[in-house]
Amino acid sequence: MRILLHRADGVTEPWVRDFAELLPEAEVVVWQEGASIAPCDYAVLWMPPDGLLADLAHVKAIFLTGAGADAILKYGDALPPVPIIRLGDAGMAIQMAEYVSHYVLRYFRRLDEYEKQARAGSWAQLPQHRKEDFSVGVMGMGALGMRTIEALLPFGFPVRGWSRTARQVDGVQCFSGADGLDEFLSGTRVLVCMLPLTPDTANLLDRARLSQLPQGAYLINVARGAHVAEPDLLALVRSGHIAGAALDVFRNEPLPAPHPFWDEPRITITPHISALTIRTESIRQMVGKIRALENGEPVADVVDRTRGY
Amino acid sequence: MRILLHRADGVTEPWVRDFAELLPEAEVVVWQEGASIAPCDYAVLWMPPDGLLADLAHVKAIFLTGAGADAILKYGDALPPVPIIRLGDAGMAIQMAEYVSHYVLRYFRRLDEYEKQARAGSWAQLPQHRKEDFSVGVMGMGALGMRTIEALLPFGFPVRGWSRTARQVDGVQCFSGADGLDEFLSGTRVLVCMLPLTPDTANLLDRARLSQLPQGAYLINVARGAHVAEPDLLALVRSGHIAGAALDVFRNEPLPAPHPFWDEPRITITPHISALTIRTESIRQMVGKIRALENGEPVADVVDRTRGY
Repeated sequence: MRILLHRADGVTEPWVRDFAELLPEAEVVVWQEGASIAPCDYAVLWMPPDGLLADLAHVKAIFLTGAGADAILKYGDALPPVPIIRLGDAGMAIQMAEYVSHYVLRYFRRLDEYEKQARAGSWAQLPQHRKEDFSVGVMGMGALGMRTIEALLPFGFPVRGWSRTARQVDGVQCFSGADGLDEFLSGTRVLVCMLPLTPDTANLLDRARLSQLPQGAYLINVARGAHVAEPDLLALVRSGHIAGAALDVFRNEPLPAPHPFWDEPRITITPHISALTIRTESIRQMVGKIRALENGEPVADVVDRTRGY
Repeated sequence: MRILLHRADGVTEPWVRDFAELLPEAEVVVWQEGASIAPCDYAVLWMPPDGLLADLAHVKAIFLTGAGADAILKYGDALPPVPIIRLGDAGMAIQMAEYVSHYVLRYFRRLDEYEKQARAGSWAQLPQHRKEDFSVGVMGMGALGMRTIEALLPFGFPVRGWSRTARQVDGVQCFSGADGLDEFLSGTRVLVCMLPLTPDTANLLDRARLSQLPQGAYLINVARGAHVAEPDLLALVRSGHIAGAALDVFRNEPLPAPHPFWDEPRITITPHISALTIRTESIRQMVGKIRALENGEPVADVVDRTRGY
């Protein structure tokens, strides 16, 4: 069995080592631009370069090593008609829950403002936000969104959720579809974007939609930069309608040097680290699924190409 | 019934209004330096000035409106021999759990470093800490400490606790007494101080004890400044043995302008806001206890003067 491996960061050695240990019968072939490789049975990748597509011709399945199928589905019909398989979780859900909980608590307790004060040498207590005014609205209620919701509920925040299709979750006010979006946004103080990136969700958070958030709202984006119209967000932050944003994802990554977000103190920039793939756990999952596929058994987490995730 | 009220911040009007609503039979007397007042039945205060002691001569009980009995017990035998009654919780435990969870997540996910990087215009992913290396040790396992422990456990941190007398808590590695302190400290990556301030705990966190923490440890102090030997902490932060500290309490508050903590970027200063008293809930509690005392019934949360809390 031959496995094609591509890593955008170029760090392949630990992946090869883990596969050798967990699936010793496989030969892992590290894909390189321009080098010709023998046909492979499976591919392990996330954001493949264009030149890689031809080498997918014979694979039986494609495994994604990061969250989100958008980086591969953009190739559309150029992809072979084989299952594209997401990571079930591999430790990413808890990492996103940590990141989001941290920024929700930070804004709620005004700790960003306190630290700014302290850097200026000032000691002053600020009026405390009230929890009943601090609803947190999570967009996207898949495995990642649900884990974050579970982390927020014990702190007593009023939690709302929005999903494409209607859902019901204990203790969460649920909204769905285009019809539910206005009411969801207008009652959400902290908007947490955890959506998959699909044609329906790209640019969803534009000036019109972000303006529906109440005065003094916050945005936390751990999904994709393309969900947010960046100039619209910047304008709403500068006008004070949006009080702050913690952004882990951007239209262009790394965020280019002259981007205005760098100079806006109310926007916190992190370099796409809200959920890093935990390698060994990911490989363990993929190996289990490869064994199932080889035995003709069904596997979970197959991407639905029409939905886009 | 007459209730003596003292507020160090001078903001008394909302307290008078809430008492009028919840205990209409009482007359609330706002204590003022130098003014003579008729004997009162109960006192509501937290950090009384020396001049107030004489006016406690006839009270049947003293209610504290903040966390910690140290500010009143320092008067020792000058206090009347009546019950001194703490707030049961009044929303302070959840606030401390929020504050501590925020800083534990912040250090674990290196978000303080990421934000510093971003202010310098730099985009770079840092190696992630491993949760198994990130044990959180909570000193003080009363109502406040336990609520914080409950908030940390679902995130999967290895949680340890230290208390004066032995305790057993599911999922928590418990240590107690002077004998258990060395082992507790040497295995604690994030030390969270939530102790009452007593003669036994004052200066507990000095150079010798803080040095027992592993290299790269963090300190979160939400208890009292007097638990920590401030110059020792500063030296250990500067040497790099302690990687960072979030301090909400200090020897002198407000933290004086020329204090070296202000200029140490690895020390985060907040102005004693980790848990603010929620007035209405506090008054509701005190009113319930006053009614019980008037009926000769026992009340909870009476301070043990020999233990100091």
